Amino acid sequence: MLRFHHIVRVSLFASKASTFPLTSLSLSTSIPKRTTFALRSQMTSFSSSSSSSSSKLLFRQLFEKESSTYTYLLADASHPDKPALLIDPVDRTVDRDLSLIQELGLKLVYAMNTHVHADHVTGTGLIKSKVPGVKSIISKASGATADLFVEPGDKVHFGDLFLEVRATPGHTLGCVTYVTGDASDQPQPRMAFTGDALLIRGCGRTDFQGGSSEQLYKSIFTLPKDTFIYPAHDYKGFSVSTVGEEMQYNPRLTKDEETFKNIMANLNLSYPKMIDVAVPANLVCGVQSKV
Amino acid sequence: MLRFHHIVRVSLFASKASTFPLTSLSLSTSIPKRTTFALRSQMTSFSSSSSSSSSKLLFRQLFEKESSTYTYLLADASHPDKPALLIDPVDRTVDRDLSLIQELGLKLVYAMNTHVHADHVTGTGLIKSKVPGVKSIISKASGATADLFVEPGDKVHFGDLFLEVRATPGHTLGCVTYVTGDASDQPQPRMAFTGDALLIRGCGRTDFQGGSSEQLYKSIFTLPKDTFIYPAHDYKGFSVSTVGEEMQYNPRLTKDEETFKNIMANLNLSYPKMIDVAVPANLVCGVQSKV
Repeated sequence: MLRFHHIVRVSLFASKASTFPLTSLSLSTSIPKRTTFALRSQMTSFSSSSSSSSSKLLFRQLFEKESSTYTYLLADASHPDKPALLIDPVDRTVDRDLSLIQELGLKLVYAMNTHVHADHVTGTGLIKSKVPGVKSIISKASGATADLFVEPGDKVHFGDLFLEVRATPGHTLGCVTYVTGDASDQPQPRMAFTGDALLIRGCGRTDFQGGSSEQLYKSIFTLPKDTFIYPAHDYKGFSVSTVGEEMQYNPRLTKDEETFKNIMANLNLSYPKMIDVAVPANLVCGVQSKV
Repeated sequence: MLRFHHIVRVSLFASKASTFPLTSLSLSTSIPKRTTFALRSQMTSFSSSSSSSSSKLLFRQLFEKESSTYTYLLADASHPDKPALLIDPVDRTVDRDLSLIQELGLKLVYAMNTHVHADHVTGTGLIKSKVPGVKSIISKASGATADLFVEPGDKVHFGDLFLEVRATPGHTLGCVTYVTGDASDQPQPRMAFTGDALLIRGCGRTDFQGGSSEQLYKSIFTLPKDTFIYPAHDYKGFSVSTVGEEMQYNPRLTKDEETFKNIMANLNLSYPKMIDVAVPANLVCGVQSKV
């Protein structure tokens, strides 16, 4: 058994659903036993109607109003230690998130980012300072500092559940999407945490931080149509979409590639007000980081 | 077969989970056939891990930022006509909601309110003016105008799914909670749309519109602990909780009744800025109502 936080690159394999060459990086969560408060009522099950499989996932979508950022809490509530991870935490809502995690009796293992955000400061560093043992994760291609770097095809395990890492560059060079596992004991339909790459009826801008509308266009929509889309932001009050829905109704990404590139080149967006603070901070896990 | 929109009070029965005497009001959704765009990917299944049952529910949580209101879209995506309902729609997000409903190929049947809101104008009347055939629903005890009035124990059917009506007075006299059905073919765990009666780690104020802290205290927590709580508002970025979680961590409702009543009597909240506009409008399904 691997010790807690050991990292092992296990094997090369091909995912039937991915167009990316995948490698498997197993971030083990073989956690030492400890007493945790168990609330069975927290276990959310997602089960496909066309499948008899189900898995126990505790899932919470959390919103930070000022930057309209969604933070996602996922945990394996059926595992004795209830290992949990946060995707895209925000510095100013860290206390809320950690309080919820404590109340739910979870053990936070990873604080992950989909990319180096330009509109808010990540909570990763602050979380690490408040919860010893939590490891920060970001893509290697992001150029940021973190405890663990992931690459496309890697897997991030928490209990018996795992996320796959997919490259979805374009908004920034190092953008990744975390997708729940492609296995019968994993949540069905699958859930994709797309960061700013794919938003509900929109997508992230591509005009800074190595952004490329061409890359963005090519990196989207490789997942099954029933995959749930959970973006890092929403500005209109939507909480979730699906790949199929965005393939049909996304006003930008339903265009041909050339039209899409023209749209993205002519958005005339203002310079992000937080970028000069957020990006340098987020390159080192947020301002509070000790990494 | 009942015709569309016919209302039949079917039978008296007792719910094993409820403390209220229940009657069954069947609001039939035997909808004439029409061509609808079917996106199988929209079907969200909720299935209890301890149960083999599952049901097809399309579910979307929608947020209105100014009043921090959640509107809920529910539909039976497995039914040929995809009958849908909206709980607590807001006037200024009606176009967003109707656009989503159209994209998803749903047929909106009901626009429902949990109570007469004081902080925003309901979208019910506006929806009725834009989508002929939609029926507004509110509790009889609310004193408001609507097409259909429900009482505790009534059922609101949409396709093969249904909501049960529970009395949860206290915030206002006529507050009800809509709860997904207590049957093996209904979503598990159950989902409770609590309006302002029970908020995540909070509850609605009780100092106007017939509010009563005593009534509120007694009307909460009669549902199974694993029931999901979907409130009408959240101000901290939470999206969902459970009955069990609130029984354990709600800072107000975990107190004894006397302490709770003292808390509610001494909140010293300001007069709601929208109340003088919202309440008169909401008593007639919102300002645009033709009811």
